[in-house]
Amino acid sequence: MTYSYGVQTETIVALATPQGVGAIAVIRLSGPDAIRLANKVFFGANLEKQATHTIHFGTIRDGEQIVDEVLASVFKAPTSFTKENVVEISTHGSSYIVNRVIKLLIRMGARPARPGEFTLRAFLNGQFDLAQAEAVADLIHSDSETSHQAAMNQMRGGFSQEIKSLREQLIHFASMIELELDFTEEDVEFVSRAELRVLVEKLLRVIDQLISSFDLGNVIKNGVPTVIAGKPNAGKSTLLNALLNEEKAIVSEIAGTTRDFIEDEINIGGMMFRFIDTAGLRETTDTIEAIGVSRTQEKMKTASLILYLFDLGDTDMVEINRDINKLENLGVPFLKVANKVDKANTQFIKQLSTIHPDTIFISAGQKENLDLLKDRIMELVNLDKFRTGNTVVTNIRHYDSLTRTRESLLDVLTGLDNEVTNDFVAMDIRRSLHYLGEITGEITTDDLLANIFSKFCIGK
Amino acid sequence: MTYSYGVQTETIVALATPQGVGAIAVIRLSGPDAIRLANKVFFGANLEKQATHTIHFGTIRDGEQIVDEVLASVFKAPTSFTKENVVEISTHGSSYIVNRVIKLLIRMGARPARPGEFTLRAFLNGQFDLAQAEAVADLIHSDSETSHQAAMNQMRGGFSQEIKSLREQLIHFASMIELELDFTEEDVEFVSRAELRVLVEKLLRVIDQLISSFDLGNVIKNGVPTVIAGKPNAGKSTLLNALLNEEKAIVSEIAGTTRDFIEDEINIGGMMFRFIDTAGLRETTDTIEAIGVSRTQEKMKTASLILYLFDLGDTDMVEINRDINKLENLGVPFLKVANKVDKANTQFIKQLSTIHPDTIFISAGQKENLDLLKDRIMELVNLDKFRTGNTVVTNIRHYDSLTRTRESLLDVLTGLDNEVTNDFVAMDIRRSLHYLGEITGEITTDDLLANIFSKFCIGK
Repeated sequence: MTYSYGVQTETIVALATPQGVGAIAVIRLSGPDAIRLANKVFFGANLEKQATHTIHFGTIRDGEQIVDEVLASVFKAPTSFTKENVVEISTHGSSYIVNRVIKLLIRMGARPARPGEFTLRAFLNGQFDLAQAEAVADLIHSDSETSHQAAMNQMRGGFSQEIKSLREQLIHFASMIELELDFTEEDVEFVSRAELRVLVEKLLRVIDQLISSFDLGNVIKNGVPTVIAGKPNAGKSTLLNALLNEEKAIVSEIAGTTRDFIEDEINIGGMMFRFIDTAGLRETTDTIEAIGVSRTQEKMKTASLILYLFDLGDTDMVEINRDINKLENLGVPFLKVANKVDKANTQFIKQLSTIHPDTIFISAGQKENLDLLKDRIMELVNLDKFRTGNTVVTNIRHYDSLTRTRESLLDVLTGLDNEVTNDFVAMDIRRSLHYLGEITGEITTDDLLANIFSKFCIGK
Repeated sequence: MTYSYGVQTETIVALATPQGVGAIAVIRLSGPDAIRLANKVFFGANLEKQATHTIHFGTIRDGEQIVDEVLASVFKAPTSFTKENVVEISTHGSSYIVNRVIKLLIRMGARPARPGEFTLRAFLNGQFDLAQAEAVADLIHSDSETSHQAAMNQMRGGFSQEIKSLREQLIHFASMIELELDFTEEDVEFVSRAELRVLVEKLLRVIDQLISSFDLGNVIKNGVPTVIAGKPNAGKSTLLNALLNEEKAIVSEIAGTTRDFIEDEINIGGMMFRFIDTAGLRETTDTIEAIGVSRTQEKMKTASLILYLFDLGDTDMVEINRDINKLENLGVPFLKVANKVDKANTQFIKQLSTIHPDTIFISAGQKENLDLLKDRIMELVNLDKFRTGNTVVTNIRHYDSLTRTRESLLDVLTGLDNEVTNDFVAMDIRRSLHYLGEITGEITTDDLLANIFSKFCIGK
């Protein structure tokens, strides 16, 4: 429960905003000397004499030379992100200037920050627990409403509260049992074994629930795995582009905030859908036939959703029925999507509607009925379950710790079944406590911290 | 002299930091309602009641939903960059969050900012003149010490002062001449024609100097055009990479601030060198022979510097002498660079040093003597002239306006020679004033402003 990371005596510096050309860039300094070091190169107000949370206009100078006109924001310990003294220098957004200013501050005594070091310090100084610190990284990488909400909930401590409450109940047991150990000669019992069993079982139910939420959490974080099954000419890429472009259009309304999209990830109604590359499927003329090929079948089985896309002008009822039959056997939720409705004959549409009334008729090229398709997609994945206020495990490290906690608690139950002595029961409870504590950081090791924070970007 | 851009009643919003993932992103709001609009979505302190230049922690909410935990910086008119009310919201650096917050502010009544609109408003509100506003864009794109210094000098008003002083002298003449027009019947003379000629000639000398500084300014802004001439196996790309990597190494010392380099631009001693692609040269085995080919010769003539690179183990004295002779005839400064010194025979090196004592012996592969090469390059381009405090014209728009001013002043002289009447002289002086005024923005048109600011990035 000790952090050998120790007291932070060094002042660290890094660019906090993304690389690249922009109007401004923000350089962040944190540590006991942050204000003093910034003041050495900042000309304007004396930063050491300013109140916390104030902004000052001035110049950064390298000797006689003016490097930039900047704004310096002063935050005094402990009322900053890291709980240390912090100065944020807002420069013109040139990488040349950013480099000059950072080099200058290093010459004055600052040290380049390691990845995640600002957040690490915030954690070490008690700004938040480990699960919350991890949520900061998730928040930065969130790209949909659901992943954003899960990260925000975790950052604000929702998940931590749940873990903390579980842990407190366990600590209560542990202390009772360990107290009994002290009186072992006297054969007293502070908690009944039956009572202990009931409570461990209750804890196990909560932990099982958290563990099983990880599937959901994984989908929230990485997107709903989706496959478009269809012959090459069915219009797969036209459909993908139509869904993608609509999203792009919404985003680019806000000029300058357009972001680069990974072509195969599409945000539909606040949920990210990750389109699985079924490249193998493209090589055969009859796509659904290819389901027979085991590799392809495996890929399709990992999907949470299949869009069965067919060209109305190029598919007969026999083929459609056969494909749908195969998909039903696969056991993955799927939608029947009839494309090129603008070019189809009315008779065939009528026939299809009768046999498969749940068919969605679209034109990917003409962007017809795409909203209907999206509505159906959202119904099928039941977006509501992603919007629940329930705690969802999104982090594989937390999932691992929960799984180990579960194993230790099962050991407690086995011990009770076999009427083992108190010291064995106490040991298993302590092990459970250890694993739960790893999640929020009550229990840490340097390796664990290094592993978590090295995945952060620099400047965070 | 009026700006039909009019009073800014709208509040504009944009991302001020670069696109991409980073620890933080800064969203900037400017306009009369900036603080009121931000306060509608910010929960924490009441921003409308806060002092200027203060920072406040809180949450951005969309209805009940928390979008992010942020810092809001409040700047009250006229003590902000735009001289309007400004709020800068520092969010977690996720493009999802940035989009949500900007959309939210637009829903509250803000408008997406056009490119350069923040700087345009700063100009319209008298924060600085047009030449200074343009320097802001140059500053953001500066990538070497010299281009940075030229932009910084211009942003801080050095160039504007020079133009302003020229203009004031001209205004003095104009008012004298125009006064004479009022008394034209009485045949008075407020300024002697001889005196006027002397002063116009003096002005012309200053303007000529500024115009001729544009060549220098162009080099500062776009880099010294440089050619490495040499046979394909001479080690051209090894040399380029060696020079480039050394720079990269310096930059990447500051982890996280590494920037992407355009392979053919290399910063040497604070000056950018732009390596001209002489692809054609690569196709012949005897490179310097190819100088005879007029297209290649033309390219080499546009260079400010040629590095004549040859492989010591693969070039004889006859070839070297012939190449050097051709380069001397070309009239472009060049350096004799003997590569692969580690593999050469001592006798040949001795012989070469005697005949061409100014040869620089390097090993691009072993990174030997690169510092010496750089020193020689810097001597040759005479870096000092780039470091002069003299005003340098770097902007083609200013160059155009100066050229037109010059033409108008020459017309004044011609008028004086031909003893034209005062009204013609006055007209030519007024034309000169007009063109000079365009530089600093005393004279503007909407087209001119639109043209200048549309080249800015959004958020600036």
